[in-house]
Amino acid sequence: MSTDGEKSITVGLLRPPSQSDPKRKRFRRCRSAPLSEVLPGEINAANGPQTPPSQSIFDNIHPSFRKVATYLILYLAIGTVCFYLVMDQIKGEKVNAVLDSVYFCIVTMTTVGYGDLVPSSTSTKLLACAFVFSGMALVGLTLSKGADYLVEKQEILLVRAMHMRQKLGPSEILSELENNKVQYKCFMMMGFIVVLFLVGTVFLATVEGLDFVDALYCVCSTVTTLGYGDKSFSTKAGRVFAIFWILTSTICLAQLLCYVAELNTEKRQKELVKFVLTKKMTNVDLESADVDANGIVGAAEFIIFKLKEMGKINQDDISLLMEEFENLDVDQSGTLSTCDLTLAQS
Amino acid sequence: MSTDGEKSITVGLLRPPSQSDPKRKRFRRCRSAPLSEVLPGEINAANGPQTPPSQSIFDNIHPSFRKVATYLILYLAIGTVCFYLVMDQIKGEKVNAVLDSVYFCIVTMTTVGYGDLVPSSTSTKLLACAFVFSGMALVGLTLSKGADYLVEKQEILLVRAMHMRQKLGPSEILSELENNKVQYKCFMMMGFIVVLFLVGTVFLATVEGLDFVDALYCVCSTVTTLGYGDKSFSTKAGRVFAIFWILTSTICLAQLLCYVAELNTEKRQKELVKFVLTKKMTNVDLESADVDANGIVGAAEFIIFKLKEMGKINQDDISLLMEEFENLDVDQSGTLSTCDLTLAQS
Repeated sequence: MSTDGEKSITVGLLRPPSQSDPKRKRFRRCRSAPLSEVLPGEINAANGPQTPPSQSIFDNIHPSFRKVATYLILYLAIGTVCFYLVMDQIKGEKVNAVLDSVYFCIVTMTTVGYGDLVPSSTSTKLLACAFVFSGMALVGLTLSKGADYLVEKQEILLVRAMHMRQKLGPSEILSELENNKVQYKCFMMMGFIVVLFLVGTVFLATVEGLDFVDALYCVCSTVTTLGYGDKSFSTKAGRVFAIFWILTSTICLAQLLCYVAELNTEKRQKELVKFVLTKKMTNVDLESADVDANGIVGAAEFIIFKLKEMGKINQDDISLLMEEFENLDVDQSGTLSTCDLTLAQS
Repeated sequence: MSTDGEKSITVGLLRPPSQSDPKRKRFRRCRSAPLSEVLPGEINAANGPQTPPSQSIFDNIHPSFRKVATYLILYLAIGTVCFYLVMDQIKGEKVNAVLDSVYFCIVTMTTVGYGDLVPSSTSTKLLACAFVFSGMALVGLTLSKGADYLVEKQEILLVRAMHMRQKLGPSEILSELENNKVQYKCFMMMGFIVVLFLVGTVFLATVEGLDFVDALYCVCSTVTTLGYGDKSFSTKAGRVFAIFWILTSTICLAQLLCYVAELNTEKRQKELVKFVLTKKMTNVDLESADVDANGIVGAAEFIIFKLKEMGKINQDDISLLMEEFENLDVDQSGTLSTCDLTLAQS
C-alpha cells in the first residue's frame, strides 16, 4: 500500500507538451496521487481526530500483521490449554505436558501431523479435527497478510545488497523494486527457506542425533507438511525448537509457492501488455474506443480502450462509472466543471 | 475467459444520448468486445490456418485442464514405477506392490503422509523428498488451472437449480452468475466437499470397519493433509478407493480455501468501489483527472480517475499508454484519427 503511494508520487502525471494551456488555471495544481487500495474504514480513521504519535514497537507494526499475530497467539493459547487438559487422552512419546501441548498444537495446525502424538479418545479426536480446520484457516490468513508484510520490509535491503557495486540511489532502488517486486519477494523467500533448511538439518543432526540423510529427510517431510512421522522431534530441546521452526518453515514454503504463482500471473500479464501495445490499431478499434461517442478519440479514451484489451478493466467498470459521470454532468455538456460538481453534490 | 467475452457482448457499450452525431460515421460500427485475457500465443493460433473441428472428447476439454491432467498422469506413472522398483525398501502395511506404489505416491504428493508406509533406505528417503516437492508444485498447478475449470462448467447448473422457482432465462442466469461468480464457486466446492466427506466416512465405516467417530476423524485428518497415520486405509479395496478419494478431497478443500480468499478480496474491492462512487469529487480531483491537461474533464478522463482511485489501474499503466498514444498521434492534435493511424503504423 505504501509503495503504491510512493510510486504514484515519484512518477507523477505524464503530461503532453501543452503544459501552459491557460484553461488549466481553473484547477488548483495538485500532485498527490489518488488513494488506491485504501479501505473506507482506514480513510475514515485518517480523517478522524488524530491520535498522538506513539513510539511503542507494537504501534509501529502494520495493523494487518498485528491482527494475524494476535489471532496466532490466541489460537496457540487456547490450543495449549485444551490439549493440556486432555493430555492423558493423547498417546505417544511425551516429554513435558505443557511443551507437548504446544508442540501438538503446532504439528496439527500446520497439518504436518507426524503422528508421534495422537489423540486416543473420541473427544480428543474431535478436538483435533476442530483445531486442524481452524489452524488451516489461520495459516491461510498468515500467508495473505503477515508474511507478505515481513518480506516487503526486507526487500529494500536485498536490492541494495544485490546492486552493491552499482551504487544505486534511493530512487533507483525504489524503481528497481517496483519493476521486479514479486521476483525479489521470491528471492527473499528462497533465501529464508535455505537458511531454515540448514538450521533444521544441523539441529536434527546434532541435538536429535539423526544422521545427515535422516535429518534432511525429516526437514523435507516437515517443511512440506508431509510428516510421515518415522522421524520427528522427540527430545525436550527438539520440541522447543520444533515449535518455532515448524511454524516458520511451513509458512515460508507455502508463501514461496504463492509468490511463484504470482510471478507466473505477472509474466502472463506482462506478455499481454506487450502484445496489446504492439498490436496494430484498426478503424474498428478506433470506433470501439470512442467512449462518449462524439466521433473523436482522445488520449483518455485511447487509454481506456487499451486497458480493456489488457484485461485490467471490463465493460462493467466502464458502464458503472459512465452512469456516475452522467449524474455529475448536470449541464449535459459532456465535460465536468467545478460548476457541475457544485450543483450535483449539493 | 469465455464468460468475459460473453459479458462484454451482452452488455455492449453504454453510450450517452448523442448517438446520431454525424461525426461518428467516420468509424465503421462494431459491437465486438476487445480481446481480454487472451494470450498472444492463443491469438496467433486463432489467426493461423484453422484446423478442422474434431468431435473427440479429449479435444473438447479446455487446454489448460488437459495440460494439468497430462502432468498428473505422467507424475503418477513415474512415481508408481519408481516406488514399485524400491518397494522392498519401503516398510509398513503392504497389500499389493502396484497398488501400494500408487497409494504411497498419492499420500506423498498430497502431503497427507500417514506414515503407514515409510521409506527405510537412504535412496528411497531422498526419492520421497523429490516426489513431495514436485507433487506440491503439481497440486498447486491443479488448483490454479484444472479445478477452476471444472467448477466453472458446473456453475450454470447450480444457478438454475437455486432459482428453479423464479424461472430465470438464459441471459438472467448469465448475469446472476457474473455478479456472484466467486460465491457460486464457493457453494459448489462446499457441496463437493460435503459429498466427499459423506462418501469417505461411509466407506471407512463399512469397508475399513472403523466406528463412526474414527471414520470422521480419519476423513478430517486426510482432507486437511494432516495424516497422523493412526487411522488409514489398510485393506486392498480401501487403498484403491484412497487413490481417487485422497487426491480429489485434498484438492477440493485447498481450492475452497482459495475461493474463500478470492471472495474476501472481492468483498474488499466492492467496498472500495462503493466508497469511490459515493465519495464527493473536489476541484483538486478534477485537476488530477485531467489526463491530457487541456482544462476539460471528459467522460473518459473521469473514468480513468475513478479507476485509479479504485486501485484497478495505476499511474504506470497510464504513463505507458499515454506514451503510446503520443506515438500514434502523428499530427499532435490530441485526438486519434484514421489518418493518424495510417501514418503511424505504415
